[in-house]
Amino acid sequence: MDAVTPNGSPTYVLASRAARPAPTIVNVRGEAIGAGACVLIAGPCAVESRDQLFRTAQLVSRCGGRFLRGGAFKPRSSPYSFQGLKEEGLKLLDAVRREFDLRIVTEVRDVETLPAVAEVADVLQVGARNMQNYPLLEAIGDMRRPVLLKRGAGATITELLMSAEYMLARGNEQIILCERGIRTFETLTRHTFDVSAIPMIRHLSHLPIAADPSHGVGIDWAVPPLAKAAVAAGADAVMVEVHPDPANALSDGQQALDFEAFERLARELRQLQTRSAE
Amino acid sequence: MDAVTPNGSPTYVLASRAARPAPTIVNVRGEAIGAGACVLIAGPCAVESRDQLFRTAQLVSRCGGRFLRGGAFKPRSSPYSFQGLKEEGLKLLDAVRREFDLRIVTEVRDVETLPAVAEVADVLQVGARNMQNYPLLEAIGDMRRPVLLKRGAGATITELLMSAEYMLARGNEQIILCERGIRTFETLTRHTFDVSAIPMIRHLSHLPIAADPSHGVGIDWAVPPLAKAAVAAGADAVMVEVHPDPANALSDGQQALDFEAFERLARELRQLQTRSAE
Amino acid sequence: MDAVTPNGSPTYVLASRAARPAPTIVNVRGEAIGAGACVLIAGPCAVESRDQLFRTAQLVSRCGGRFLRGGAFKPRSSPYSFQGLKEEGLKLLDAVRREFDLRIVTEVRDVETLPAVAEVADVLQVGARNMQNYPLLEAIGDMRRPVLLKRGAGATITELLMSAEYMLARGNEQIILCERGIRTFETLTRHTFDVSAIPMIRHLSHLPIAADPSHGVGIDWAVPPLAKAAVAAGADAVMVEVHPDPANALSDGQQALDFEAFERLARELRQLQTRSAE
Amino acid sequence: MDAVTPNGSPTYVLASRAARPAPTIVNVRGEAIGAGACVLIAGPCAVESRDQLFRTAQLVSRCGGRFLRGGAFKPRSSPYSFQGLKEEGLKLLDAVRREFDLRIVTEVRDVETLPAVAEVADVLQVGARNMQNYPLLEAIGDMRRPVLLKRGAGATITELLMSAEYMLARGNEQIILCERGIRTFETLTRHTFDVSAIPMIRHLSHLPIAADPSHGVGIDWAVPPLAKAAVAAGADAVMVEVHPDPANALSDGQQALDFEAFERLARELRQLQTRSAE
Repeated sequence: MDAVTPNGSPTYVLASRAARPAPTIVNVRGEAIGAGACVLIAGPCAVESRDQLFRTAQLVSRCGGRFLRGGAFKPRSSPYSFQGLKEEGLKLLDAVRREFDLRIVTEVRDVETLPAVAEVADVLQVGARNMQNYPLLEAIGDMRRPVLLKRGAGATITELLMSAEYMLARGNEQIILCERGIRTFETLTRHTFDVSAIPMIRHLSHLPIAADPSHGVGIDWAVPPLAKAAVAAGADAVMVEVHPDPANALSDGQQALDFEAFERLARELRQLQTRSAE
Repeated sequence: MDAVTPNGSPTYVLASRAARPAPTIVNVRGEAIGAGACVLIAGPCAVESRDQLFRTAQLVSRCGGRFLRGGAFKPRSSPYSFQGLKEEGLKLLDAVRREFDLRIVTEVRDVETLPAVAEVADVLQVGARNMQNYPLLEAIGDMRRPVLLKRGAGATITELLMSAEYMLARGNEQIILCERGIRTFETLTRHTFDVSAIPMIRHLSHLPIAADPSHGVGIDWAVPPLAKAAVAAGADAVMVEVHPDPANALSDGQQALDFEAFERLARELRQLQTRSAE
Repeated sequence: MDAVTPNGSPTYVLASRAARPAPTIVNVRGEAIGAGACVLIAGPCAVESRDQLFRTAQLVSRCGGRFLRGGAFKPRSSPYSFQGLKEEGLKLLDAVRREFDLRIVTEVRDVETLPAVAEVADVLQVGARNMQNYPLLEAIGDMRRPVLLKRGAGATITELLMSAEYMLARGNEQIILCERGIRTFETLTRHTFDVSAIPMIRHLSHLPIAADPSHGVGIDWAVPPLAKAAVAAGADAVMVEVHPDPANALSDGQQALDFEAFERLARELRQLQTRSAE
Repeated sequence: MDAVTPNGSPTYVLASRAARPAPTIVNVRGEAIGAGACVLIAGPCAVESRDQLFRTAQLVSRCGGRFLRGGAFKPRSSPYSFQGLKEEGLKLLDAVRREFDLRIVTEVRDVETLPAVAEVADVLQVGARNMQNYPLLEAIGDMRRPVLLKRGAGATITELLMSAEYMLARGNEQIILCERGIRTFETLTRHTFDVSAIPMIRHLSHLPIAADPSHGVGIDWAVPPLAKAAVAAGADAVMVEVHPDPANALSDGQQALDFEAFERLARELRQLQTRSAE
């Protein structure tokens, strides 16, 4: 296998199906991602308070969820937006993880804070803005920790796979890719959720592929149909934002489901799942 | 209701949910589109021969399909590509429609040939390149025939609804909208199939919304997962291309399903449907 | 020369540099486009009244312009927007053309009205929405009248050349191509004016290339710098919108220059021109 | 001034014209950027060897250039591509800077190597992939060193200004913004060079705006017309890649000018400049 295409463009080798025909199954403290069933990852965009986090964790757990998402370090387009509770947020994530049987998915935004985040995170999330932050990818590549790598809003599927290659080349094979919407001319939605990335990545790579319709579309009522579309298209995981009080969320409230909408969606996804397994 | 938004942009009125809260059900010779169940529309990209058309129609019919698609007039980017059998193709569509209990969906590309196409078409298809061909929309708006209006590859959802408004303003309410992929920077897929257009249009408009994953992605093996995604997202109809011999198709063969793949997909869509109805 | 690329995609033949190494010079009643100097085409978006048209024509003529643009038939996204004065507008264009020594550039939107428009138009303009209206291209291809073919907002440069090919294949070689902005994710500007289309088309084709920064950016104060950029990049013609009273224009007023701004721009473009010729 | 727009989106304050009506002039060891004349920045994509760097520096200097660009740390999409000479490259840049009267523009890719890069760089370049690497922006914001901030390929103009705001909020006002092409559906060019970003940024902000047509279009022969377009549109600096042997460059050779083409372009830009100043 060669690291360039016939026309000379660089490409990925270790991330390709050719390198490993069988699907990679990522093991997150006993829970598998990539083994056939679609896994639900849910939680608030940002950790805001003990009460907010614990109430959400309780809901996710009650609905059968095994994975809690929540950001302690939040990269934001504006320096004046809420940037997360940082170390305080990590402590809350550690506490909630001990209280409930939940695996924590949380974002790491730089090499400096990687050790602190890695103490709490069961899955290290690399955000869309950092998809091509190679020093960060290399540092995570040197670890043996599961990572969820989000596609950049301006990145091609091939570039996403080449960013995964940075980590694979360092020996970390516990990689979950994640589609979360790309930049297009359509303005009614926040991004355009590229559902076709799901079958494309399943075809091209052995790595599991997750979907984040909440960031993909950016509108709460549009999240459930897109979450179901992602499952139907073959996603290995679906990540959705849920908040006890979306209207007062400190970050991205307009795309968070309230508890009632989340319960309904969790039930519908379970049904869709069961049926696909029949 | 006003034909401009608060910031002064033109908008649609008759196509909006506000104008008609209940969903529009399009009646195509006794078959409903928009009534809840997702309808399958299938057939070749272009009508090529009697044998090709009749064999495909037989398959579609046997799989429970009620709608046959197939182009007699084919707008093509290059003047040297096959442009369809034209009048000859219409005759074959008329023959196949009499032989099988199928409703014909076929493209009309200009006002001149509209009367001839309308003699055969149960649903007049307006292609993506003609979405803003207003004289054509006005002529169809003056008829009382079902029409399937495809979103242009460079058109916003709002512009699609404004093109529907051209026909609604003339009195034709039998309009099915159709998402078929938009132009983005991603090059692995032919277009980017914008699955979020489905929930957006259901929210904004009373008109039924169809999905054409074949043109949306342009790769045969990616069509089934996207067709299922469209159904899961709430599409009122799914249109797929099927051909007895895709490798030798005169138009868009790389995106056509062969008979075996089509039968499998038709079965899977039926299951997905039944279950959603439980 | 072959009508497909090595990988099987359709392409253009007659529009390519290979088919004709020397640049095509379009002769519009004695005025050349494509002969080296950059030509200025100016006027209102839509013909609105005798007074508006004649005052603008007088200004354009006084500034040394030889070409007046102005739409009588206006394709608009909304059916409720002003659609042009139609036949009445053609009459005014005919009158202004007799009064001043100006060549008329005006849009033709369908085959039906082509004969009437062709009686007045020195250059038939095919708008962006009609770039792939093949019956219209074929009808114009059968004429021997100069045509200005605008790039669709969702069309590639290759597709623009293939649309020109439709007319070349019918024998009409008097084609001016026109870049007028493409659809991208940037929202501050109306479209993204693709200035690189100018050197690309000069490299790939013998046909002259014009630029329409007014539609490209959609904001009056941004038009002059982009018009100068187009000239510096090698455009054969620049088309700008000017209106005696932009704030009360019936169509696209926010992108029209007022008379003072137009005079300044015409002077600057003349200077830039003279100097490039030194 | 408020950090949110009327509709609630975050925005920039310090980067806006309202905050400072007069243009910011960035002083790079006695050479001004933003003072009216357009500055030429040239050099190889990557520093490859002493010979390559010194020969290029000599050329740039001879052509009247005051700024030499060249990467020692090269973020690349593939882990297998040449990643730069790193510390070795910095030493060569330091040597060339002493030999010729040139200011060095070189990329910094992370906080770890910032101190080493800052010892050599007269202008710290933040690459497109790092435009939203906020820890890096904050670290540079705490310095008082000129910085050239490139627009991300998937970033809006507003987001570019918000990334500048991260540095302005920390006190670093020596910021040059840089347009280098955005991701669009056009495939003939590497990116779409958004020339309209130049007048838009001049209108919205007091910060100087540079243009990088080499990365913008990715094709050597298209660079000169786009460089001229950028000057005509009002750019405060133009950055182009030049290499003694483009065919054997280790990085992005297809977009580098050879020495002859560079000399011609430098001469043409000087003429364009002189004339605009007349």
